[in-house]
Amino acid sequence: MELNFLTIIDLAGTFSFALSGAFAAMEKRLDPFGVIILAFAPAIGGGSVRDVLIGDLPVAWLSNNITIGVIIFAAIAAMLFASRLKKFEPLLQVFDALGLGLFTMVGIEKGIMHGYPPGICISLGVLTGCFGGVLRDVVLNNVPYLFHKEIYASASIIGGLGFFAFQSAGMQTTLLNIVCILLIFFVRMLAVRYHWSLPAFYKHPNNL
Amino acid sequence: MELNFLTIIDLAGTFSFALSGAFAAMEKRLDPFGVIILAFAPAIGGGSVRDVLIGDLPVAWLSNNITIGVIIFAAIAAMLFASRLKKFEPLLQVFDALGLGLFTMVGIEKGIMHGYPPGICISLGVLTGCFGGVLRDVVLNNVPYLFHKEIYASASIIGGLGFFAFQSAGMQTTLLNIVCILLIFFVRMLAVRYHWSLPAFYKHPNNL
Amino acid sequence: MELNFLTIIDLAGTFSFALSGAFAAMEKRLDPFGVIILAFAPAIGGGSVRDVLIGDLPVAWLSNNITIGVIIFAAIAAMLFASRLKKFEPLLQVFDALGLGLFTMVGIEKGIMHGYPPGICISLGVLTGCFGGVLRDVVLNNVPYLFHKEIYASASIIGGLGFFAFQSAGMQTTLLNIVCILLIFFVRMLAVRYHWSLPAFYKHPNNL
Repeated sequence: MELNFLTIIDLAGTFSFALSGAFAAMEKRLDPFGVIILAFAPAIGGGSVRDVLIGDLPVAWLSNNITIGVIIFAAIAAMLFASRLKKFEPLLQVFDALGLGLFTMVGIEKGIMHGYPPGICISLGVLTGCFGGVLRDVVLNNVPYLFHKEIYASASIIGGLGFFAFQSAGMQTTLLNIVCILLIFFVRMLAVRYHWSLPAFYKHPNNL
Repeated sequence: MELNFLTIIDLAGTFSFALSGAFAAMEKRLDPFGVIILAFAPAIGGGSVRDVLIGDLPVAWLSNNITIGVIIFAAIAAMLFASRLKKFEPLLQVFDALGLGLFTMVGIEKGIMHGYPPGICISLGVLTGCFGGVLRDVVLNNVPYLFHKEIYASASIIGGLGFFAFQSAGMQTTLLNIVCILLIFFVRMLAVRYHWSLPAFYKHPNNL
Repeated sequence: MELNFLTIIDLAGTFSFALSGAFAAMEKRLDPFGVIILAFAPAIGGGSVRDVLIGDLPVAWLSNNITIGVIIFAAIAAMLFASRLKKFEPLLQVFDALGLGLFTMVGIEKGIMHGYPPGICISLGVLTGCFGGVLRDVVLNNVPYLFHKEIYASASIIGGLGFFAFQSAGMQTTLLNIVCILLIFFVRMLAVRYHWSLPAFYKHPNNL
């Protein structure tokens, strides 16, 4: 049951990130096969790197047909509904933020399942949440969202710290997962909306 | 015997992609060691990622000296014959297309050997065929061929679909391999020659 | 003891490369969390890829808390001392060169421990030494040092060739390690200082 809930989160994250990849590819006017391939990059990038580093091989998406089906479905849905949309960019940001929250949570839970300490669990969460999007953006020659001014990885880290804080306060697991996913999603969306950014607390030399 | 034929395809793909990497590095005027290192990127990139995701470790090129020898030989050959060539770009495209066909086939066969269903075998073929070239281009700060207008990944997917179509029609394996490699190679080369591209069937908003 | 010495080299390389990542992130004015994440990229990139390709999983930095601690400490130290520095770029180059030497050595020793022949050991050394820096630069949209005119990967290869030459001359292991690390470091620093570059011995067509 607990595992089932995690699987649902994982598939929801896959769907969200696949949509973000498809919209990013459509912004760059790639052809339909290109859109499908770019839907794969964020949807499986972060989880694959996490599974590879842990040594949990073959990676999850190879051992079932559902993940691939969800990604292709998301890519086709994005293309079919494209004519109703005025711009792809805002949707890309919404689904990217949703994927960030969902995948960060999956990464943390995977770390806990493997018995890693909190610091490493949070690192795995950040990696799972952020790497797919970086891969999507690097491959498309875009500046990764990770390096825009608005807080991004910080949202993922805040969610991870929140998870272990709420957990030690005794919150029930399923609720805990939902709270942290929403925390990451809203922090990120508010950051985009109101251009939140962290100050660089180090003083940068003027001559740069 | 079947395995031997696959090994030959693999080495031919390694040689082709190593040449494509060397020519791309020479276009950017890298020094000889840089040319050798850039010959490695496409030659081992796709296969390494495939083997890592499957969990077939250590990756193939570490367990024999032949692959490394072939790559270094290709890089040196490219540099020695450079003075006779007027431009590196067309050769890069020919060897890239050949590598695409050969490596797609190797990826599909590896998937079949591991008992994966056709959808995942084609995904592994596309990954093996395309990732090395993307790595070469991203590392050199070029726009990956994958995202040029002319069909690229689509050629790899067409070859994969053709493979399973011809297989179910009862074609003999070695012939099947050769037909699919040539199919991918010619689709890609014709696409480059006549600027074939797939239409983006989704309507793109005008304001972009 | 021998292993202990190697562990110290590994941590010193981690610290050096983490500093190089932090300085590169500060040059791009990333926020503090961004600086910490960019400190991870070069510090664990090369070693992770090496361990993954060898199949030595989970990768080393997941099985201890020291590595993560060293990286976060380096990132915070870089930010705290930033106000005293006039420019980040020269420091980035020093710590990058130090990391290159230290990690190349670790990669070669890991190859020897796994019983690989010298050619593959040198490849693993170059990969461990160079990949993290390439990852740092690609992710930040910089042209990788690897492709600047000044010799870079060549320094790593020279150190690797020197290692096996001195070894066959009977040099004692710990001394051998130190000599090769310093060899790589000084070759790289002198190359930066005096703009050393290898000639492209192939004749490049004029029309490019």
